[in-house]
Amino acid sequence: MTAFEQLMAYERDTQALGQIAGRLGWDQETMMPRGATGQRGAEMAAIESVLHARRSAPQVAEWLEQAEAPDEVGAAHLREIRRSYDRTIKVPADLAKKLAQVTSEAQGKWAEARANEDVAAFLPVLEEVVALKREEGQALAAGGDLYDALVADYEHGTTSSEIAKIFDAMRPGLVDLRARVLDKPAPQGLSGRFDEKTQMQLARTLARTFGYDMAHGRVDKAVHPFSSGSGLDVRITTRTSETDPFNCFYSTIHEVGHGAYEQNISRDYLLTPLGRGVSMGVHESQSRIYENQIGRSRAFTGWLFEQMRDSFGDIGVSDADAFYAAVNKVHNGYIRTEADELQYNLHIMLRFDLERALMQGDLEVADLEAAWNDRFEADFGYAVDKPSNGCLQDVHWSVGLFGYFPTYSLGNVYAGCLHEALRRDVPKLDTDLAQGDTSAATGWLGEKLQQHGGLRSPRDTIAHAAEMEPDHAPLMDYLEQKFGALYDL
Amino acid sequence: MTAFEQLMAYERDTQALGQIAGRLGWDQETMMPRGATGQRGAEMAAIESVLHARRSAPQVAEWLEQAEAPDEVGAAHLREIRRSYDRTIKVPADLAKKLAQVTSEAQGKWAEARANEDVAAFLPVLEEVVALKREEGQALAAGGDLYDALVADYEHGTTSSEIAKIFDAMRPGLVDLRARVLDKPAPQGLSGRFDEKTQMQLARTLARTFGYDMAHGRVDKAVHPFSSGSGLDVRITTRTSETDPFNCFYSTIHEVGHGAYEQNISRDYLLTPLGRGVSMGVHESQSRIYENQIGRSRAFTGWLFEQMRDSFGDIGVSDADAFYAAVNKVHNGYIRTEADELQYNLHIMLRFDLERALMQGDLEVADLEAAWNDRFEADFGYAVDKPSNGCLQDVHWSVGLFGYFPTYSLGNVYAGCLHEALRRDVPKLDTDLAQGDTSAATGWLGEKLQQHGGLRSPRDTIAHAAEMEPDHAPLMDYLEQKFGALYDL
Repeated sequence: MTAFEQLMAYERDTQALGQIAGRLGWDQETMMPRGATGQRGAEMAAIESVLHARRSAPQVAEWLEQAEAPDEVGAAHLREIRRSYDRTIKVPADLAKKLAQVTSEAQGKWAEARANEDVAAFLPVLEEVVALKREEGQALAAGGDLYDALVADYEHGTTSSEIAKIFDAMRPGLVDLRARVLDKPAPQGLSGRFDEKTQMQLARTLARTFGYDMAHGRVDKAVHPFSSGSGLDVRITTRTSETDPFNCFYSTIHEVGHGAYEQNISRDYLLTPLGRGVSMGVHESQSRIYENQIGRSRAFTGWLFEQMRDSFGDIGVSDADAFYAAVNKVHNGYIRTEADELQYNLHIMLRFDLERALMQGDLEVADLEAAWNDRFEADFGYAVDKPSNGCLQDVHWSVGLFGYFPTYSLGNVYAGCLHEALRRDVPKLDTDLAQGDTSAATGWLGEKLQQHGGLRSPRDTIAHAAEMEPDHAPLMDYLEQKFGALYDL
Repeated sequence: MTAFEQLMAYERDTQALGQIAGRLGWDQETMMPRGATGQRGAEMAAIESVLHARRSAPQVAEWLEQAEAPDEVGAAHLREIRRSYDRTIKVPADLAKKLAQVTSEAQGKWAEARANEDVAAFLPVLEEVVALKREEGQALAAGGDLYDALVADYEHGTTSSEIAKIFDAMRPGLVDLRARVLDKPAPQGLSGRFDEKTQMQLARTLARTFGYDMAHGRVDKAVHPFSSGSGLDVRITTRTSETDPFNCFYSTIHEVGHGAYEQNISRDYLLTPLGRGVSMGVHESQSRIYENQIGRSRAFTGWLFEQMRDSFGDIGVSDADAFYAAVNKVHNGYIRTEADELQYNLHIMLRFDLERALMQGDLEVADLEAAWNDRFEADFGYAVDKPSNGCLQDVHWSVGLFGYFPTYSLGNVYAGCLHEALRRDVPKLDTDLAQGDTSAATGWLGEKLQQHGGLRSPRDTIAHAAEMEPDHAPLMDYLEQKFGALYDL
């Protein structure tokens, strides 16, 4: 075997172990007995330690030095293995192990603190997480910006200054659009109670409608919906609320966007460094375009309206236009994951600024709740009423995901670009969507973007598919047009 | 850190990784999407390869040489680590990896072949498994009997000749008792249809009644019920049949016996070599005494009769005596896991003799079905009607579990000894059981046996708890008395 072949065989096992670690995360959120938290921490620490050792093994450096890529794909493999190796050797094994253990425990404490509305119970372990992440960021940044180094874990090839520039350019427009919309009369919402089993049935129908492959996946419930796994085993989760079926359906479509991306990557890349979504931002572009530009379009909601009437009978709105308005209702609210398409990015900008300040040492964990509440009131015009509606609402920080939040809005920006190109290439799109047929849209995304996995950089992945450099203008135009029409602006 | 402490820290991670591998097995049987089989094979192979490397690392041998046990428990740790190390270095890493991969695939093929009644579709992969297991046995036996070497993986400190001696001693008595019982009129069975959701509810009640801790476990469905995991995360499975609720309830109680054993091991042994049930035979002694000597006793079935009437209304038998007879009805049947307490061991002896012959080269895989069917007809007096009732009924061989079957009957023998001692030490047992209170029985087992985990050898574990050397006489006496009384012999 050549050095390249040896490296690829080794990498295959590493990827397989990474899949196992991911599945443990799925299990923890869906199936694990509550009392198993402590043992799971030890288990996660053990497998993270194995992964760390494999990724940073001197043998990998030797193979990288000797390996010759047989082709362009091979070169991409080597590029990604090198990036992972360079990243990994900067973080001491003990730190990686400690992080796995503390964040595993922190998730349990976060869930408890959230249930009890008790920020103080969460802060000590969050303090530990923040300190460890700063330590990790410092090790990674090697003198540079430690938060940028963390962002690179989720979206390589960008910096927090670049992100801040995009966010700053979008924000005045969003604030203005939001103000104009909320000045108008609110459309009618749904009313009634919606059986949760029926919701799960329709959620599974929606998943299949968007091309999610149940032979290589499954749908379960979780407090915070997520998707997990790559290749032949890609699982998604959703949640139900008796009074808010849209939460279930659009969480499902969102996670299907993530899951279908993973399922549609070329099987040639199975258990290789290219066999996963290339970045969190690109991932989010898929979940968002499935959820919003397709799932919340006038055409698709016309079909969904009929489905919901078939499943639930009278749902409190009388026709498809009113249903479309209800789906896209702009409303006050505290929860990011329940936010409408228009205000969502403001929730992200809040988190981006706060976590950037936490990481850069400009904000103490002890002051986090106050900072959150002040910023929220400034942006949204009303005060946070309880921690579960404020700084305890998201699981991310307990898991150590600092640098992850901005990728949600980057994903929206990317989705805007892809949507513009999709409309150009598939003129009959609305005709299809009105019949509940998403195949032209998902097929276009599969061919232009999803199948390529990690072959290109995040930015080039979008540029290749959309045939334009990523830019926030298409998203802003789309939002302005959509909500302008909906609210008679 | 001393060599002993370093070794124990290392061992803790190895145990944690072993727990992860076990949980993947659970996932595969309960949750995994059907299309994920191939990828899961690669995942299992990767983690088995990691485990193999850790267990056979030269560093372990060095630590073992230098380590000094601080006390009796420390000495037991070292003894078990040494046994694992000696066992592991005998098997080449490639063979271990190949076995993991082939058996993972074989499980999928077995399930399909079983569903299609297609033995031929299963034989090629079984052939591969048998060849690999023989190779493994040869490596382990180092010139000795290769089947004995495989048995030692499940029940160390015994040989297949010793087992054959016990089985030979029991068999005439079982055949004779069976013939006398089946000469008598059959008692009435249950009748009606039993809602499967209600069965699962009562199954969970039964699990709790037998002391299974839901905060550290969960109950799911699987084709072939099993238990999985140690310490703080011990999961069990069961199955339901609309016409046969006993299948669900006694599978549940059986698996609770396994699960409670794992849950009740001293927390001091968590993620150490002593933190698991000491052997399959001792494990089976727990599942069997829960299921049979306790769960199928006249006293406990009196309580269960009331529970079932509360849950299902009329169940087709009129009083607790008739219910007791129905629970313990001796009936013709093909399926081991549905066999009654009396005939069960005959099913095991069949498998023991066939797999021993397969391993020793006296039987070809191609002749397995014929050999199974001949032996079955000779022992039970009627012919196997289809492969799913014959040689395709059990998952074990597809998983590579050769040497495992005999431990089921060893477990029955052990359970007989423990039951005799339990009755002696807890005279009020039947009074408690009649109220659905198993705490005196499970408490006795917890204190005498379960808490000690792997501290003593399998044989000594039983001898310590029962205060007698393991012997088949108590089991045979118990069966003779129980079925003699039930069938008026």
